[in-house]
Amino acid sequence: MMPERDLQFLTELAAQLRVDSVRAADAAGSGHPTSSMSAADLMAVLFACHLRYDFDHPGNPANDHLIFSKGHASPLLYSLFKAAGVIDDEELLSFRKHGSRLEGHPTPRLPWVDVATGSLGQGLPIGVGVAMAGRLERLPYRVWVLCGDSELAEGSIWEAAEHAGCEGLANLTAIVDVNRLGQRGPTRHGWDTGAYARRFGAFGWHTIEIDGHDPGQIDYALGDACNTRRRPTVILAKTRKGEGAVEVENREGAHGKALKNPGKAVDELGGRRDLRVEGHRPEEAPEPYRFASKPLELPAYEVGEKVATRTAYGQALAALGAARGDVLALDGEVADSTRTEAFGKEFPERFFEMYIAEQQLVAAAIGLQVRGLRPYAATFAAFLTRAHDFIRMAGVSGASIRLVGSHAGVEIGEDGPSQMGLEDLAMMRTVYGSTVLYPCDANQAAALTAEMADVEGVSYLRTTRGNTPVIYGPGERFPVGGSRVLRHSPGDRATIVAAGVTVHEALAAADELKAEGVPVGVIDLYSIKPVDSAVLVEAATTTGNLITVEDHRLEGGLGDAVMDAVSELGPRVVKLAVTELPGSATPEEQLSDARIDRQAIRQAVKRLL
Amino acid sequence: MMPERDLQFLTELAAQLRVDSVRAADAAGSGHPTSSMSAADLMAVLFACHLRYDFDHPGNPANDHLIFSKGHASPLLYSLFKAAGVIDDEELLSFRKHGSRLEGHPTPRLPWVDVATGSLGQGLPIGVGVAMAGRLERLPYRVWVLCGDSELAEGSIWEAAEHAGCEGLANLTAIVDVNRLGQRGPTRHGWDTGAYARRFGAFGWHTIEIDGHDPGQIDYALGDACNTRRRPTVILAKTRKGEGAVEVENREGAHGKALKNPGKAVDELGGRRDLRVEGHRPEEAPEPYRFASKPLELPAYEVGEKVATRTAYGQALAALGAARGDVLALDGEVADSTRTEAFGKEFPERFFEMYIAEQQLVAAAIGLQVRGLRPYAATFAAFLTRAHDFIRMAGVSGASIRLVGSHAGVEIGEDGPSQMGLEDLAMMRTVYGSTVLYPCDANQAAALTAEMADVEGVSYLRTTRGNTPVIYGPGERFPVGGSRVLRHSPGDRATIVAAGVTVHEALAAADELKAEGVPVGVIDLYSIKPVDSAVLVEAATTTGNLITVEDHRLEGGLGDAVMDAVSELGPRVVKLAVTELPGSATPEEQLSDARIDRQAIRQAVKRLL
Repeated sequence: MMPERDLQFLTELAAQLRVDSVRAADAAGSGHPTSSMSAADLMAVLFACHLRYDFDHPGNPANDHLIFSKGHASPLLYSLFKAAGVIDDEELLSFRKHGSRLEGHPTPRLPWVDVATGSLGQGLPIGVGVAMAGRLERLPYRVWVLCGDSELAEGSIWEAAEHAGCEGLANLTAIVDVNRLGQRGPTRHGWDTGAYARRFGAFGWHTIEIDGHDPGQIDYALGDACNTRRRPTVILAKTRKGEGAVEVENREGAHGKALKNPGKAVDELGGRRDLRVEGHRPEEAPEPYRFASKPLELPAYEVGEKVATRTAYGQALAALGAARGDVLALDGEVADSTRTEAFGKEFPERFFEMYIAEQQLVAAAIGLQVRGLRPYAATFAAFLTRAHDFIRMAGVSGASIRLVGSHAGVEIGEDGPSQMGLEDLAMMRTVYGSTVLYPCDANQAAALTAEMADVEGVSYLRTTRGNTPVIYGPGERFPVGGSRVLRHSPGDRATIVAAGVTVHEALAAADELKAEGVPVGVIDLYSIKPVDSAVLVEAATTTGNLITVEDHRLEGGLGDAVMDAVSELGPRVVKLAVTELPGSATPEEQLSDARIDRQAIRQAVKRLL
Repeated sequence: MMPERDLQFLTELAAQLRVDSVRAADAAGSGHPTSSMSAADLMAVLFACHLRYDFDHPGNPANDHLIFSKGHASPLLYSLFKAAGVIDDEELLSFRKHGSRLEGHPTPRLPWVDVATGSLGQGLPIGVGVAMAGRLERLPYRVWVLCGDSELAEGSIWEAAEHAGCEGLANLTAIVDVNRLGQRGPTRHGWDTGAYARRFGAFGWHTIEIDGHDPGQIDYALGDACNTRRRPTVILAKTRKGEGAVEVENREGAHGKALKNPGKAVDELGGRRDLRVEGHRPEEAPEPYRFASKPLELPAYEVGEKVATRTAYGQALAALGAARGDVLALDGEVADSTRTEAFGKEFPERFFEMYIAEQQLVAAAIGLQVRGLRPYAATFAAFLTRAHDFIRMAGVSGASIRLVGSHAGVEIGEDGPSQMGLEDLAMMRTVYGSTVLYPCDANQAAALTAEMADVEGVSYLRTTRGNTPVIYGPGERFPVGGSRVLRHSPGDRATIVAAGVTVHEALAAADELKAEGVPVGVIDLYSIKPVDSAVLVEAATTTGNLITVEDHRLEGGLGDAVMDAVSELGPRVVKLAVTELPGSATPEEQLSDARIDRQAIRQAVKRLL
């Protein structure tokens, strides 16, 4: 049992966290004090008694990781940082103000925050990824994730529960603040912590139900989590939203607002305090385990061979795995199709089967990169839409993850529209800080796969199902942000801009047009974002007529990227893209039906001229 | 117990379904025969003994609904349709061919298919929506969903499990074909049907574990599902992939391919048969329950008032609910923020709280519209990205659903980037057949809310958090595909195109510019898709200079929609949009930081000229 003195300190510390949460929200005029107050005891005990964290060295590999999956409880997190002595009261009161690091929801602008949260249901699956990294690197840290009860309705939570449960991630603990009240009213299960325990238990977790305002019970549960082997632990803590302030305590309609009478609440909570909680510096940790590496030898394909870019990606990734121990691969149970299996066979320790759970697939990648690892996560391009919100938030986090989408476009043929990635370029281009690459041949695909390893932020490689002719020699370089001018003559009357499968259609069309006395240029725009503005501007200025052609919907893809680069010059641009709903057909029929094949390009050029 | 004769018929029918699945895939040279063969007994017994369906009248309100959540088992579905006599053998063998209705994965081009499937984990949550419709309309039909075991890894399955379990949707039965093998190898739980039973049981479902190749057990389980009250039922059927053909039976590496030796498999299965299964026509059903209706009286706002468009949406939806009994509202536990609560208070029977589960939110809407109901599903615009894959597939289904995204753009202010819808226009524009609307004032928002009720396909309304001035009179019409020219003079030197919150910035900038002797036009492009090409072409032709300004990322939004409409004319276009990562700040600071406020517009015009 904990000594009386310690219990009193913990109670005082929790009261301080509540007071500071109320004060921060009051200074901002908004925020989520009540969602902070319910979890104050949980976090006070965690910080004071169990968290091993060296605030002077946030990058210390031995540090525990704490993720606020309920990111709206940011006032509590910032109050903890104040108690830890790493921000002062003045900064606390800058909460939500212009230029402050203390944003409405936490982001890694703060060095002690691993990932941005605020879109609910993301912290736990990302925590799974951080726990996977700990196991891979053989580090002794623990991952603590503070969840809300409302967010347990998100399917992504159960993808995380399944993965962590089946993998036995004992270094992961979810602490659920069951405060009974969501944003607009009571949650589905209210204070029925048993309902949650049955669910997590069925997924193989160790479950503990406690009173979340009792420091002794909290301490026991956190210790129990640390001592549990082979299973992740979930602590289901019954709490009261707004605990400690009569104005808001356990009341509906008090979500996401500063208190009306903060002074009274602070008084009820015993006034301001200035307690410090040192936390526990972690013991000296072993060096993170590193896998062997050797010089990179990318696969080489002969010009004229026909090889699918997805195959080249797979082989290049395997080569990259041999060259770099920090490269990992994650699969959404389609590694035979995406060709990630080439990596999996050679490096089973660094290959993670995430099954058909694309949110967890991407979240695991985000978690793994927290430790500086370089994950590649691949599935069908179409199914990456499943993880759109995670990808969006990865952009906010500045997370460096590599996504690979195979089976792009109508080119896949018979499988039909459900399997066609036709929206992926648009989705990936909108992500903050993203890089979007779309190779047309195997050597280019291999080079870009390797290049992605060092790209910061969210990067995306789009691959094609069918075999395409190799047009570039092995070893050629394709820098991010570049392009290749494949046909060019001083007399060009128009320029065709293509990428991926349409490059080959564009080349065929250009050759036919040339034979008909209509010379046109062809640009391979393999880097869709950033885009090679200089080359596009040059083409727009010289020919004044651009034809873009892409195996993607008309909206938000390559055509728009081109127009964006040249819009202020005012060239005439014709965009060829997929506008109708495809059915089943051969790849050739699909390209023809979608009017993005050589014939359609030729006609478009002639119509434009 | 079932008579021997019937058992024999069922066994023969199942063999026929397997034979036809093998033959269809053989004719196509691709497809998923093995995933069809594992479920053949399950579907034979369902069709012969339990499904109530009038194939002559697919729209009969009393019809049961059958959804193949494992859409890749399409050969089985089409073989069932052949056995039911609604397609002939010739059509069966057109599987996956150009122009055939029998696509690689089922779509509603077939009148007996409610929704397109093929993206796994979608059929069950959509089935939840169809079951909700049955309860709402007081119809006696049952909803049968055939799931694969691999897809149970999808979080969306557990969102569905939670909703159906808590709501006690006894008219819903999931039949899980536990064939142990996913695409690339064994599933996580193999044949451990108990693992799935524990999970579904924890979510409140009635669970039955059976041998999925034993017609007697199947019949018993299906009957038990029909007789179960107050709980949905899941039948966990242990099966063997490729059952009945030695070449593929229970073998890895046999997923998604035609058999190498189909003739041998057909022989092993006893050769071709031509059995018919009539199915049971449903008994005369009561008329679907209809809610009262009365003439529409939209809310009216006075010009000059300041009202948030989200508020106008909520009030208009409530008015629409009174006018039309078929209008429903679904909420992602943010109805107070989206303002859907106005509807919920007046029409609780037609208001569905889906909690924080955006995939199920959208899936329920898709399921409800199967019965011709008109659902509006609302959450923060940012969080609709969570349901991107469902929205994409709704486009493939031709589903008529109405989505509403509030808290668009940086305008939300202090909450920060996690809560800002900055990618939603791009996402919604890429959806096949979608309509994208973005009102700038309350009367326009109300009018568009009402107009959406009759829009076919996926439609989207984007609303703003803060109050904006009312600039249009009550009762004005805003047809889909239209725009409003707000400033125009013969001497205009440029035209500003805006929507939503930036309309007001554009008007202010135009007024300032006019005072400085630079007349510019202003267009309110409230219909982002379809876009008013005629008006944009007119502006591009007359002024030759366009400035687009939007509270959205640079990629895929309003600016791209405008460029698309005028690209072949070659005007000069400057796009103002959000390019950096916002933090927390006031709405005014955010608009200024993002360079999309009146000041930035003025400078852009001057720079362009």
